[in-house]
Amino acid sequence: MTTTEELGRRVKTASRQLAALPSGKKDEALAAIAGALWARREEILAANAADIAAGREAGLREGLIDRLTLTEERMRGICESVRKLIALEDPTGVIESGSVRPNGLRIEKVRVPIGAVGIIFESRPNVTVDGATLCLKSGNAVLLRGGKEAIRSNRALAAVMREAIASCGLPEDCVLLVEDTSRESANEMMKMQGVLDLLIPRGGAGLIAAVVQNATVPVIETGVGNCHIYLERTADPDMAEQITVNAKTSRVSVCNAAESLLIDEGCAQPLLPRVAKALMDRGVTLRGCPKARAIVPEMEPADEEDYGKEYLDYIMSVKVVSGLDEAIAHIARYSTGHSEAIVTRDYGAAERFLNEVDAAAVYVNASTRFTDGGEFGLGAEIGISTQKLHARGPMGLAALTTCKYKVYGSGQIR
Amino acid sequence: MTTTEELGRRVKTASRQLAALPSGKKDEALAAIAGALWARREEILAANAADIAAGREAGLREGLIDRLTLTEERMRGICESVRKLIALEDPTGVIESGSVRPNGLRIEKVRVPIGAVGIIFESRPNVTVDGATLCLKSGNAVLLRGGKEAIRSNRALAAVMREAIASCGLPEDCVLLVEDTSRESANEMMKMQGVLDLLIPRGGAGLIAAVVQNATVPVIETGVGNCHIYLERTADPDMAEQITVNAKTSRVSVCNAAESLLIDEGCAQPLLPRVAKALMDRGVTLRGCPKARAIVPEMEPADEEDYGKEYLDYIMSVKVVSGLDEAIAHIARYSTGHSEAIVTRDYGAAERFLNEVDAAAVYVNASTRFTDGGEFGLGAEIGISTQKLHARGPMGLAALTTCKYKVYGSGQIR
Repeated sequence: MTTTEELGRRVKTASRQLAALPSGKKDEALAAIAGALWARREEILAANAADIAAGREAGLREGLIDRLTLTEERMRGICESVRKLIALEDPTGVIESGSVRPNGLRIEKVRVPIGAVGIIFESRPNVTVDGATLCLKSGNAVLLRGGKEAIRSNRALAAVMREAIASCGLPEDCVLLVEDTSRESANEMMKMQGVLDLLIPRGGAGLIAAVVQNATVPVIETGVGNCHIYLERTADPDMAEQITVNAKTSRVSVCNAAESLLIDEGCAQPLLPRVAKALMDRGVTLRGCPKARAIVPEMEPADEEDYGKEYLDYIMSVKVVSGLDEAIAHIARYSTGHSEAIVTRDYGAAERFLNEVDAAAVYVNASTRFTDGGEFGLGAEIGISTQKLHARGPMGLAALTTCKYKVYGSGQIR
Repeated sequence: MTTTEELGRRVKTASRQLAALPSGKKDEALAAIAGALWARREEILAANAADIAAGREAGLREGLIDRLTLTEERMRGICESVRKLIALEDPTGVIESGSVRPNGLRIEKVRVPIGAVGIIFESRPNVTVDGATLCLKSGNAVLLRGGKEAIRSNRALAAVMREAIASCGLPEDCVLLVEDTSRESANEMMKMQGVLDLLIPRGGAGLIAAVVQNATVPVIETGVGNCHIYLERTADPDMAEQITVNAKTSRVSVCNAAESLLIDEGCAQPLLPRVAKALMDRGVTLRGCPKARAIVPEMEPADEEDYGKEYLDYIMSVKVVSGLDEAIAHIARYSTGHSEAIVTRDYGAAERFLNEVDAAAVYVNASTRFTDGGEFGLGAEIGISTQKLHARGPMGLAALTTCKYKVYGSGQIR
């Protein structure tokens, strides 16, 4: 039987061939993939239907079934995304900087693919295509390991993509699926130091924490967001309400949604009742500190845990703070470093918040929901990094590259 | 007793205050450090003498004693390095890019300090000052944990630096020494996720491997170099000899020194005898493959292990290869991804080597010894990264920073 490590080595070998290819060849393969996925959509949808049937039998809850489901419409969207990728600039090969040293050595710092990338994800089959094509565009070969619920869909998607890649003369192992969906295969991937150059977990907080704890392969952490909206004393009331409602309710299941509301005691009356009503009218359950509950008695009491929680649901914690210092300290304590916003009319408060809050994205007078590769103008997005090393915030294709120094000499010695 | 984790939290707190300071304040503290280290050199040298005496008693070998030793001359050099740092540009605050989005949001990508940095190192007390001041210049607070052999020197150096920092009104916990030099304190540092933002091991391959294996804190791997010189068929013989001799012998104990010589069978006769003689004349022991030994019988036989070894000594492995393909494949198998060089007159061979060899620095017709922050024009150097994430190759001050998106809105919602 093929071990996961052997699959990793095949991806590594493919990555060497892929790294040397110009973007024209990679774009050709992407076009072939988009064409083949659409042409063979029935076969893919049949495999997906089998996954869904098995999922229902196993009693998967509806939210998971929905994430698992492919439809002709979703297939169209997937193929559209692949075609959009073709139009983006290839980040590899770009000369970032260069100089001639006093001894005549010419040094170029060039952007190159990272190499062999592993992606561990859950039950969304669109990640299979997304991960594969983002890696391909940036010159990386990829080992994909999805959840067991989506295994039939993933097998079909991977087979179609591999054939399309091979039809363009590229090594089909540029995209390789781990068919063993046991915990062991994921653990093996985490330890493939020297084989995989990078591991990206895409999924819930539990998956990400497990990978960060156990991986010896370098990891990019994505996407856990305990985002705060801080309504400073001078906040415009209309703007405060609109931004809070938007950040909390426009899409509750995403990492850039707000989970916690901080409000200055100087403006809590009458602003908190107004904002709380707007949230509750939209079905949000509020969990507040004693001061907040004294103002809005409909709130449930918040316990310590609430302030650290990414609910991904119609729930929001609320805390009344004495001012900017307490707000910044509270965020420093509970933030996951994703996105944090202040609503204010005070220049000094805005500046301090932007400078002192330590997060990938810090906002003045805008919703945290804008933390997104598309909204930031990056084109494609691999995820949103909440770590500080390598990439932070929305990651575009460049986050899948590294650099290399090319040194051109004429016999220099030191 | 104070735990190492508590020390980490103090550094984290200091890092928040430090991050907000402009470069003028940090440069003032650096000047105070340089002044104080020089003014109080006798106290520091006395502590160092006690370390050396203890080391001799414990039977430390001379190489280690030398690395441990401070002299008035070395103190002058250390102070000089701190002063040079003042003149370098502060990487923080630089706006890397920025734009106004169609909805009017103004987005700036700004360089900011990483935060709280841990450095685990061995017995060189100069790393104590070096690590502390590089972090300070780039706005990071640092938790230093050196080897037990240097504990008295490190205590003296840290005390002097902390007083100097405090005299400028900065929090003295910007620089904090772990006085517990047991293995446990290092292990604790590796697990301080959420407290330390980055861990840098500076030392031998064993230390680095232990940190990479065990750390949950993000790590930058530095400095293991199994560097190759490949003499391609068309290599200029004089240049081939000079570059090989320089890369191997100009300083054998450093990571950018060459450890392995590859030579084309098409030029091995008469080039290999000539290069081998030049190396052996300088005291280098050669360990060759059967083909190499058939040409130069004085070589010892190389075993499989030799090709993967970073000798850091007057030893070099030698292999005769059939051509560029075998050379590239051999390097792919044994390289640590540090620095690799080809000597050639063939344009196509040079291009293929530069593009296909996967290393931080790839050279044509120059010695691998140039992989160095100073030689690359970066000013200060924190180390040479052999990983692909975050930083690769010589790391300047910018490698100690990350970025943050500042988003200026006027009520935008999504």
